[in-house]
Amino acid sequence: MSDAKTTEDQMESRLAHLNEALESGRMRRLKPMLHSLSPAEIGLLLESIPRTKRELVWRLVPEDDHGETLLHVNDEVRAELIDALDDDVLLAATEGMPIDDLADLIEDLPEQVTREVLHTMDLDNRERLEAVLSYPPDSAGGLMNNDTITVRPDVSLDVVRRYLQQRGTLPDDTESLFVISRYGRYLGMLTLAKLLTLDPERDVSEVMNTDIEALPVDMSAAQVAKRFQDLDLISAPVVDENEKLVGRITIDDVVDVIRDEAEHSIMSMAGLDEEEDVFAPIARSARRRATWLGANLLTAFLAAQVVGLFEATLSQVVALAVLMPIVASMGGIGGSQTLTLMIRGLSLGQIGFGNAKTLLIKELAVAIINGILWGAVVGVIAQVWFGNPTLGVIIAVALVINQIGAAIAGVAIPLAMKKMGIDPALAGSVVLTTITDVIGFGAFLGLGTLFLLR
Amino acid sequence: MSDAKTTEDQMESRLAHLNEALESGRMRRLKPMLHSLSPAEIGLLLESIPRTKRELVWRLVPEDDHGETLLHVNDEVRAELIDALDDDVLLAATEGMPIDDLADLIEDLPEQVTREVLHTMDLDNRERLEAVLSYPPDSAGGLMNNDTITVRPDVSLDVVRRYLQQRGTLPDDTESLFVISRYGRYLGMLTLAKLLTLDPERDVSEVMNTDIEALPVDMSAAQVAKRFQDLDLISAPVVDENEKLVGRITIDDVVDVIRDEAEHSIMSMAGLDEEEDVFAPIARSARRRATWLGANLLTAFLAAQVVGLFEATLSQVVALAVLMPIVASMGGIGGSQTLTLMIRGLSLGQIGFGNAKTLLIKELAVAIINGILWGAVVGVIAQVWFGNPTLGVIIAVALVINQIGAAIAGVAIPLAMKKMGIDPALAGSVVLTTITDVIGFGAFLGLGTLFLLR
Repeated sequence: MSDAKTTEDQMESRLAHLNEALESGRMRRLKPMLHSLSPAEIGLLLESIPRTKRELVWRLVPEDDHGETLLHVNDEVRAELIDALDDDVLLAATEGMPIDDLADLIEDLPEQVTREVLHTMDLDNRERLEAVLSYPPDSAGGLMNNDTITVRPDVSLDVVRRYLQQRGTLPDDTESLFVISRYGRYLGMLTLAKLLTLDPERDVSEVMNTDIEALPVDMSAAQVAKRFQDLDLISAPVVDENEKLVGRITIDDVVDVIRDEAEHSIMSMAGLDEEEDVFAPIARSARRRATWLGANLLTAFLAAQVVGLFEATLSQVVALAVLMPIVASMGGIGGSQTLTLMIRGLSLGQIGFGNAKTLLIKELAVAIINGILWGAVVGVIAQVWFGNPTLGVIIAVALVINQIGAAIAGVAIPLAMKKMGIDPALAGSVVLTTITDVIGFGAFLGLGTLFLLR
Repeated sequence: MSDAKTTEDQMESRLAHLNEALESGRMRRLKPMLHSLSPAEIGLLLESIPRTKRELVWRLVPEDDHGETLLHVNDEVRAELIDALDDDVLLAATEGMPIDDLADLIEDLPEQVTREVLHTMDLDNRERLEAVLSYPPDSAGGLMNNDTITVRPDVSLDVVRRYLQQRGTLPDDTESLFVISRYGRYLGMLTLAKLLTLDPERDVSEVMNTDIEALPVDMSAAQVAKRFQDLDLISAPVVDENEKLVGRITIDDVVDVIRDEAEHSIMSMAGLDEEEDVFAPIARSARRRATWLGANLLTAFLAAQVVGLFEATLSQVVALAVLMPIVASMGGIGGSQTLTLMIRGLSLGQIGFGNAKTLLIKELAVAIINGILWGAVVGVIAQVWFGNPTLGVIIAVALVINQIGAAIAGVAIPLAMKKMGIDPALAGSVVLTTITDVIGFGAFLGLGTLFLLR
């Protein structure tokens, strides 16, 4: 089937097409391609080209897609495009966008354009936009759209049907109506499926679904995402502190949260910002990464200090210098396995202080078994290599000690960081390798000093 | 607001409650809590307790939730629970499950139970189940549910409304009907919202949405997820090689794919299986992790070999042994930043062979700037520490060389692995640190041999 082409192949051919046009200068040739892509796909393409060429390509993006495309590029690329665009183009881009999307975009627009946007909106829409803007973007209030269709519990399905027929249109992705009391309190949901299939004489209150609890408007986006996943929700009501319905969240907004969270973990572990533009200006990238390298340098010097304590030993037994990276590296690898398991478990809520002890015991057992196994292998090789049986025993023992230290550190570091309110994904691995380096070098060279010096 | 408690706090208190019950032996106390949780939440709780206790807790899970809960635990825990359960309990668990969920579960059930399940189903459902089972689980066919409601294009909305009224019920999460030709070919979608709001005298063909392209049944799950994200879909039709409609995929199934993919990257980078049970038996965990440690050991020995080449130098200038871990470590950190950017970019389709060169130039520039910056810092410290100006220059130069090598390796390794069909998330970091260790030790000790030996 022609459509069975992989996503990567598709991207490759789009990129190739783009490069060809950029090099030959025949930019018009890109138009048909850009018109056939969705805003998300155009956004990805914009992220994939060097920044100097982005504005050129942006000019060919269909105007209808401007607003949504801006939402689909990362923060850095968005700021850059907004900077380069004229105010009237930006104003045009915001037209017809759903309130929740507009709320995400408007905070990045120049003040002048924001004022214009608010000015051109009708009162009703402006109030709705301002309501969404009054909540933090990473809360239920910031995620929600307030275009809910509400009905009262004491009317018949037939009345609701006639009301919808008269309305003539429903907001995008509406698959449920929300049932509210006279005072605006959320009571339940009524799916369009029920509305179409059940006896029209029945009342809304008899058939509405009251199982789905409303989300408080100040709930964090991460919790909203978890609730959607736990309950397999498609949409959910959002209520204020008085249980009044203020909006709805649909799953397509939640999907972005879920993906962003996962990306955040992956990028943090390497000390990168998840909004990092692949083609960011060199100076900006270099400055950011310098911090991470500097933090690592501090810890590397700490490890070097430990090695420095054993200068006298090293000058007599050079084999120790040759083998010491092995001990440190094996500790780092073992520890990072435990650390990764902990970071994922903590973020899923699978691991907490309540069961950390059980996990520590298991990880210690695994560390001891693998320490002995690979310690023995390394010991035999070291013995053959340097013809020194004592050296073999020493490296084996040091390796076991370091695996044990790595397991303890792997469990303890993320828990301690969580207590201190630090993201373990961000700082965990730097602290961990410092500890495994110090223990590894210290144990190996310490044992060497005790048993190998004459 | 009471509901503003964090997810972690909730999990902690559930775990604490569970531990208390397990320790006091008063298991009945858990019943109210388990009855108030969703299958996904129960699944997470089961994953969070030591395996010896899981069966005890499982016995208290409401029977209605058995099937779905089994779907929400990872592969290992599922296999374990299925092993421990009687056949008739398992048979009861499958009752009333949607076909797509049942298809996911049935492959893990004992053969005897599978036969029973098929035996108790009516012909229609059995045929639908067998159809889903005939596709690989990680394809559109494996993800889909074949409970589509279809209508013909040449009937009026009024006829469709009366048909649904007569039907009396719709499958879960139905928000669209599918329009097919006389021969079963997919033509378009009709949302329930349109059905309720538009003029009932109009024909389906006039109002149906033909924008959403059908997904081929053999499309990979990853591509399906990308399509849903790119087009903000809620549900999509699936067609066979003759364009005949065979089922539909809803976004809740896709959310699982998106999350699993992200988890796969995080876990792979540490050489872990994403289905790994946190409380897996010690022997099994140890065996698996041993492979990863063994692979790392091979590469560590390679680095040690390089150090070994310079034994004579090291015995004369011990300072080199003290400082060499710094050079290697800074290379590893710098390289893993580039590598992470590449792995994410490749999986998003943001980076390909077409723009890798531009990225390489940028990464090289960043590496040179940071190499010179931190090389100078390290150089000054080394000079002060060991009172040797030449040593300071040597370590600075080695650090720059290693940052450059790290940037090249960080870009080249994942591209090469992709060409070879190897997952860069899995093997990338081991290969990368081998290269940065070899370059780091080689450059630093090599320069030391040239310029520091008398």
